[in-house]
Parts: sequence; C-alpha cells; structure tokens
Amino acid sequence: MTTDATVLDGLDFPTSGLAVGDDVADLLFREARTAAAFTPDEVSDEQLAAVYDLVKWGPTALNTVPLRLLVVRTPDARRRLAAHMNEGNRDRVLEAPVTLVLAADTGFHAHIPTLAPHMAALADALEGQPEQRESMARMNALIQAGYLIVGLRAAGLAAGPMGGMDAQGIDADFFAENGWKSLLVVNVGHVEGAGTHYPRAERLSYAQASLSV
Amino acid sequence: MTTDATVLDGLDFPTSGLAVGDDVADLLFREARTAAAFTPDEVSDEQLAAVYDLVKWGPTALNTVPLRLLVVRTPDARRRLAAHMNEGNRDRVLEAPVTLVLAADTGFHAHIPTLAPHMAALADALEGQPEQRESMARMNALIQAGYLIVGLRAAGLAAGPMGGMDAQGIDADFFAENGWKSLLVVNVGHVEGAGTHYPRAERLSYAQASLSV
Repeated sequence: MTTDATVLDGLDFPTSGLAVGDDVADLLFREARTAAAFTPDEVSDEQLAAVYDLVKWGPTALNTVPLRLLVVRTPDARRRLAAHMNEGNRDRVLEAPVTLVLAADTGFHAHIPTLAPHMAALADALEGQPEQRESMARMNALIQAGYLIVGLRAAGLAAGPMGGMDAQGIDADFFAENGWKSLLVVNVGHVEGAGTHYPRAERLSYAQASLSV
Repeated sequence: MTTDATVLDGLDFPTSGLAVGDDVADLLFREARTAAAFTPDEVSDEQLAAVYDLVKWGPTALNTVPLRLLVVRTPDARRRLAAHMNEGNRDRVLEAPVTLVLAADTGFHAHIPTLAPHMAALADALEGQPEQRESMARMNALIQAGYLIVGLRAAGLAAGPMGGMDAQGIDADFFAENGWKSLLVVNVGHVEGAGTHYPRAERLSYAQASLSV
C-alpha cells in the first residue's frame, strides 16, 4: 500500500523551538490521541514492517534493541489474547484491525555479537544472569515502546496502548518457549477524526515536571 | 531563540508506508545518532520547554505522565552528577551544553485528580502502595523517555543517552526529598554532521524481531 494521499506538505509554520512543522508535531504528538475505535481499513504487514524499520534506529543501551512484536491477527489468536485482558479491554482486542503485543526479549544477549561486536564477550557474561537480563530487556524495550508509538503515528496509523492485562498469562500462553515478557498491548488501525470522544486530559507544565540545578 | 533556519521543507518523497517525509524520518530516527560530542552552542530553557510541551502529549497509563526532568547546567551540579556516572561517561556530563536526568516521580499519584479526574479515588488507593507506585512510575516514565529522545530530535537537538551510572547515588544526592528515581542521563546539544565517528551499528530485521499469530 502507499500512503501518498496522507503525505504532509510540511509547510505549516513551525512552533518556535521545533525543527519540524506544526503538521508533523500535530501528527506525532499534539493532535494524536489514544484511539478508542478504528475504521475497518486494514493494516498490512508491509506497513508494520515500515514502522519497525523506522523505529529500530532509536537508541538503546549497548544497542541491545530488545523490543519484540507479537502481531495478532487471526480470530483464534485474538480470542486467546482477549482472555488475558482486563474486561474493559477485551472487545478492543477483538475489534481492532491488528493488535501488537509489545514484549521484551530476555534472550537479547544472543544478538550482542551482531549488534555490538565490540561487546561480544558480554553475551557470555549475561548468559548466567537471567535477572540482570530481564531488567535490561524490560528497561530498553519500554524506551523502544515509546519510539514505536511515535512510529505508528509517523505511518499515519493510530495507536491504542493498553496496560490492563494479565502479563504473566500472556507470557505463559504465547511466550513459553522464547522467553519474551509482555509489556504493553497496542491496538493499531486507522481512525476518523480524533479517533476518540474523550476530552483531551490535562498535562503537567514544564515548570511542574522539571527542576534546574 | 528560533530554529527557522533548520525547518524542514517536508517535500522529500516519503518512504512507502510512512506519512512523514524522508527528511522527518531521517531527522527523528534514520540519520539521528547518539551524540559523542557537541558544538559549543547553548541549549536554552525555552527550547527544552518546547520539547517538553511537545512530548507531554504522548500517552501513558491512566495519563499518569510520571516522567520528570532534572536540568543540570551549573558547574557545581555537573560535578556532583559526574561523580555518580561510570568513568567513561564523566567527561561527557562535564562537557555537554546541558544534561538531563530523566526520572520517574513515585509521587505521581498526587496529580491524578488533575490529570485523570474520573480516577481521582486512585490517588488515595495508591498512597499506601509505594512499590506499586514505583513500578507504575518507572514503566510509564521509560515509555516517555522514548518520546523525549524523539522530541529532542524534533527540536533539531542531538541526544546522548547514557545508562552507565549509579542511579541510587544520583537519587540520594538529588532526589532525597522529592522521591524521584533516576532512569537515564541524557546529554543534549547541537552536533556537526552525525555527531559521532562510530559506525552505525546493525539492527535486527522486522522478521527477526516479530512473530505473527
């Protein structure tokens, strides 16, 4: 598929302090909302791969890039996943065009010789440290989850991230063999308008959220 | 300050599957690199506030937005922070135009009545659950750390995130009174060219990092 029809012209006058136009700032952050309902339009694997190929470049500690994606499409897989979601999130999983389980790969160290050749010895050192590995994997995959949500929006898609789930149940059902640990479930699709009827919630100001020393 | 000179024209032909132009994709992810050295150009508080005001809109669970920023500028504060960094990261903190300590606010629940009024009762419920609060704060602030790194780049800034530090030492030195927990230290500034001489490291392919069910 092509998204040429939605290409931004980038000519909006940018807000002071930003290097991207207002249209890009709106698409990625300011106007983007957590989607409550999607149009029936499909999301192709090619589009998800384009999002991944964009956000894979985001930095992680030692270039460990431990984020993994379970792409849930089939009716059977949807029902299995929905059973592990909090009640209010079940229909969302059953109805979304596609749902991603964002997970941290506790076996990420096997890729260190490829991803960070100068740290190759670390792969062996981490082999016997499963708790350290899980902590590293979760921390860096969560940072990558932030990149991914921005990347979905950069592809013109809307994201509906949800944390209300039985993460251990998902892990036992889907990841018993590969050691992935589920972090977040994200419904993905297209929206009409804002994709939600909820009013925009408040945010803390920069003055409230920062300290200078 | 204004960054008009670096405004992207957005007219590059976008890569298939994306809704933003190649120039934006390059700025935010594909060409952006973890900075090893910065130019002497300053980073103003106004510019940091513009970045915050962009990324504050990114989604978090229950709109808790627990990410906090310690903005480190003064020589004394730089030296205090550098003392808690791993040896290889000390000079980077001493030499960066500005350094941010990204932290999770374990007292985020005090803001729930403002940020998520329909969940106001949760503020009281969380008061007696410090471990649950810290887990929620860390998870959501890490996702926000991903937004922030993208946001710095959207402002034309380069980021040098570092995890090699004594986080508990930073917390004891800077956050003894406010309950913030340091997650990541990020040097921020302007770069010439790529801002690093390290070759671009490999990434896993979409096929390697995903499973479909």
